[in-house]
Amino acid sequence: MAERYPDGMHGAIAAGLTELLGDAVTITRATQDQPENGLDEGLLATTDVLTWWGHATHEDVDNAVVDRVHQRVLGGMGLLALHSAHFSKIFRRLMGTTCSLAWRNSGDTELVWTVNPSHPITAGIPQPIVINEHEMYGEFFDVPAPDELIFLSTFSGGEVFRSGCCWRRGKGKVFYFSPGDQAYPIYHHPDIKRVLANAVLWANPERGSDFAPPAVADMPAPHLHRGALPESIEA
Amino acid sequence: MAERYPDGMHGAIAAGLTELLGDAVTITRATQDQPENGLDEGLLATTDVLTWWGHATHEDVDNAVVDRVHQRVLGGMGLLALHSAHFSKIFRRLMGTTCSLAWRNSGDTELVWTVNPSHPITAGIPQPIVINEHEMYGEFFDVPAPDELIFLSTFSGGEVFRSGCCWRRGKGKVFYFSPGDQAYPIYHHPDIKRVLANAVLWANPERGSDFAPPAVADMPAPHLHRGALPESIEA
Amino acid sequence: MAERYPDGMHGAIAAGLTELLGDAVTITRATQDQPENGLDEGLLATTDVLTWWGHATHEDVDNAVVDRVHQRVLGGMGLLALHSAHFSKIFRRLMGTTCSLAWRNSGDTELVWTVNPSHPITAGIPQPIVINEHEMYGEFFDVPAPDELIFLSTFSGGEVFRSGCCWRRGKGKVFYFSPGDQAYPIYHHPDIKRVLANAVLWANPERGSDFAPPAVADMPAPHLHRGALPESIEA
Amino acid sequence: MAERYPDGMHGAIAAGLTELLGDAVTITRATQDQPENGLDEGLLATTDVLTWWGHATHEDVDNAVVDRVHQRVLGGMGLLALHSAHFSKIFRRLMGTTCSLAWRNSGDTELVWTVNPSHPITAGIPQPIVINEHEMYGEFFDVPAPDELIFLSTFSGGEVFRSGCCWRRGKGKVFYFSPGDQAYPIYHHPDIKRVLANAVLWANPERGSDFAPPAVADMPAPHLHRGALPESIEA
Repeated sequence: MAERYPDGMHGAIAAGLTELLGDAVTITRATQDQPENGLDEGLLATTDVLTWWGHATHEDVDNAVVDRVHQRVLGGMGLLALHSAHFSKIFRRLMGTTCSLAWRNSGDTELVWTVNPSHPITAGIPQPIVINEHEMYGEFFDVPAPDELIFLSTFSGGEVFRSGCCWRRGKGKVFYFSPGDQAYPIYHHPDIKRVLANAVLWANPERGSDFAPPAVADMPAPHLHRGALPESIEA
Repeated sequence: MAERYPDGMHGAIAAGLTELLGDAVTITRATQDQPENGLDEGLLATTDVLTWWGHATHEDVDNAVVDRVHQRVLGGMGLLALHSAHFSKIFRRLMGTTCSLAWRNSGDTELVWTVNPSHPITAGIPQPIVINEHEMYGEFFDVPAPDELIFLSTFSGGEVFRSGCCWRRGKGKVFYFSPGDQAYPIYHHPDIKRVLANAVLWANPERGSDFAPPAVADMPAPHLHRGALPESIEA
Repeated sequence: MAERYPDGMHGAIAAGLTELLGDAVTITRATQDQPENGLDEGLLATTDVLTWWGHATHEDVDNAVVDRVHQRVLGGMGLLALHSAHFSKIFRRLMGTTCSLAWRNSGDTELVWTVNPSHPITAGIPQPIVINEHEMYGEFFDVPAPDELIFLSTFSGGEVFRSGCCWRRGKGKVFYFSPGDQAYPIYHHPDIKRVLANAVLWANPERGSDFAPPAVADMPAPHLHRGALPESIEA
Repeated sequence: MAERYPDGMHGAIAAGLTELLGDAVTITRATQDQPENGLDEGLLATTDVLTWWGHATHEDVDNAVVDRVHQRVLGGMGLLALHSAHFSKIFRRLMGTTCSLAWRNSGDTELVWTVNPSHPITAGIPQPIVINEHEMYGEFFDVPAPDELIFLSTFSGGEVFRSGCCWRRGKGKVFYFSPGDQAYPIYHHPDIKRVLANAVLWANPERGSDFAPPAVADMPAPHLHRGALPESIEA
């Protein structure tokens, strides 16, 4: 992996985004071994979109950090959950399901097919994306039915996977994308870089976001009073 | 085909439903070469679920018959559109899209994967259904995103297809299922028979259906009047 | 409340289900003050559909019980979350969001409108259901977009609420229904009883359910091998 | 109406878009009384987003024009169907349903509630939009369940309507928005102007669109051959 990703997985992901989005993005790297897993309040408070790649050590992520990221997503921050992040604490909490799947690591060819051609995440993506060798992730993928299904992957072993899925949670947007195993040079693949760049733009909060998660609203006054507008909301 | 389906495609489909549903269903066969394509008003008026298989001669189906079936579906009748019925007039009208797809007839192996395990159409279905040889139908399948995605098919050529999809239209339910080419003995496959039987039960109208398509309601009186209930609807 | 519900909320809910479903259901009552909140392993292992009503003391529910119910839902058990159960631990965990909403308790008239007339939960339900007086629950309701939106409620104050929503999670089905405040005789309302009875039937697990939550499948062998079927799955 | 909309409905809609989007849009007006209903091939070929307002004379729109607009939407053009355009030929064809609804013209107050706060169409929109007087459009609205439900309207009469809905059809995006009756100054309302401007940006085709509707793809070669990539698609 050190050979394939001399600058780390996060380095390769960052390089792809910089290549395609240029000055439109400012990228900060955070790693699990840093204090607060690199995601302190100050950093999160200035983060519009968070990409999350993790593997094997999900349980070591601090629950307080997960709480913080969860609140930030519900308040409007975009989240890209990549590959084995299907088992990250934050993704499982946002989904409410086991997020389990079928898998096999035997260098299958993976083809990534677009099934949502008017979606911005698919702009400029060939039909299909060809990944010569990759780990197989297969169905049943135990997630809520995506709000928008974007990509389906097939594998030379005959399996299938909903490999690109969008959900909205609170005021935030979540995109899961399965290509990205550490044993293959996926993040150097030009089409994969394009998907990630498109997804960052899609997941970006709408202008004017206040990043406050939805909260209980105690409404003392009715909006309509005896069929007429109360003075307070008369337009 | 005469060898494979000595009683016709419709005969094989009917036999499968009878085998699995027994007295719960009464089956009438209609064929395109009959007057009114076999679908006169009297028959439709007593039909709860219509299965539609057609090929190549879709354009010869009478538009008045399509209008009639369309109204019946919107009024509550279930519709199973099978295989090449993706290009039938009735299915295209219900979808509003081209319903085009990719295809190749080269005896691919098809695997049918369940992605909705709590859906009644998947009850008793193995993961995956194995079809040794079949025509390939692949993405992009130009249909509206299904209300419920049930099955995904992969092919030995690497393609993928949303092969089992549910939509609700008006008061009626529509299920599209792609396995079923005339050149292969698909409708004798025990798992395929099970899918069709499950789908007939799912598409069956709810009890108390009046089979009237939704219509404009001219509402003279408000439901609430100055914040209180009008006498007419006081519960 | 003792006057309105002399047999408790759960007693009224049970009575309605018994009235409409008769011998088709066997009902067991569990209350929060019982050991393990009344939901021990033995009871859950024989429960097909769980109705959950709770208020104010959600935080006192044992986390181990919530874990157990969560696993049972993912394994196939149906769940009806009623009214203030929007803030129950189990519902929030299944949704992954805050589940917050707007509210006001001022005896508004509530009208419950059907927007999914082919759905079994709406069978026999008038358009609209009229509830003379009820607590107002309004938007924004912070839940994932429902897989199927069934009912919308309006209030004499002008507010709106997605009051009947279906989701699938794992192998299980979840229905949230907002009418049901303890200060009003909602569960004696004939239409509300009908909705609950319909929902219990809808949420019932499919036949043959094994109640095992989805789990990781380590697939050693490809389903297709060099474009052909491996012997092990040759049909 | 001439007093309220001295420059026509289309003039008011155009003025709102110009005010909010400025040079980002170039607006051309087309009216039903023009040759080819103002929508000749040349104009459509340069149109990215089409707003459609119509009333009463839907049947007089030329079917050939509807075919042309339909193909253009499936090829990627965005469509905003406004108010009584629910009964336009183009909208009904894209939906496949009756598109009928309940209505009453008695100057109800309408409140438009956001139920999808992370959607770009809701950016900068208050909760709720207050429309002092408007025609009532109510459920049941016979359209396919929207891919994304954005707005719900309530009326002082107690009715409810899914007043802002998104669908994807082919490569194109469709937004229906119900506020906009000719008897009320709706299109001068600042929040309504904002919704329309947001919707135009959302419905805009993705960069690189070729505007070719999806078509049948006859695939001679498999994408995978005996578990490996054929030379033709080797990446």
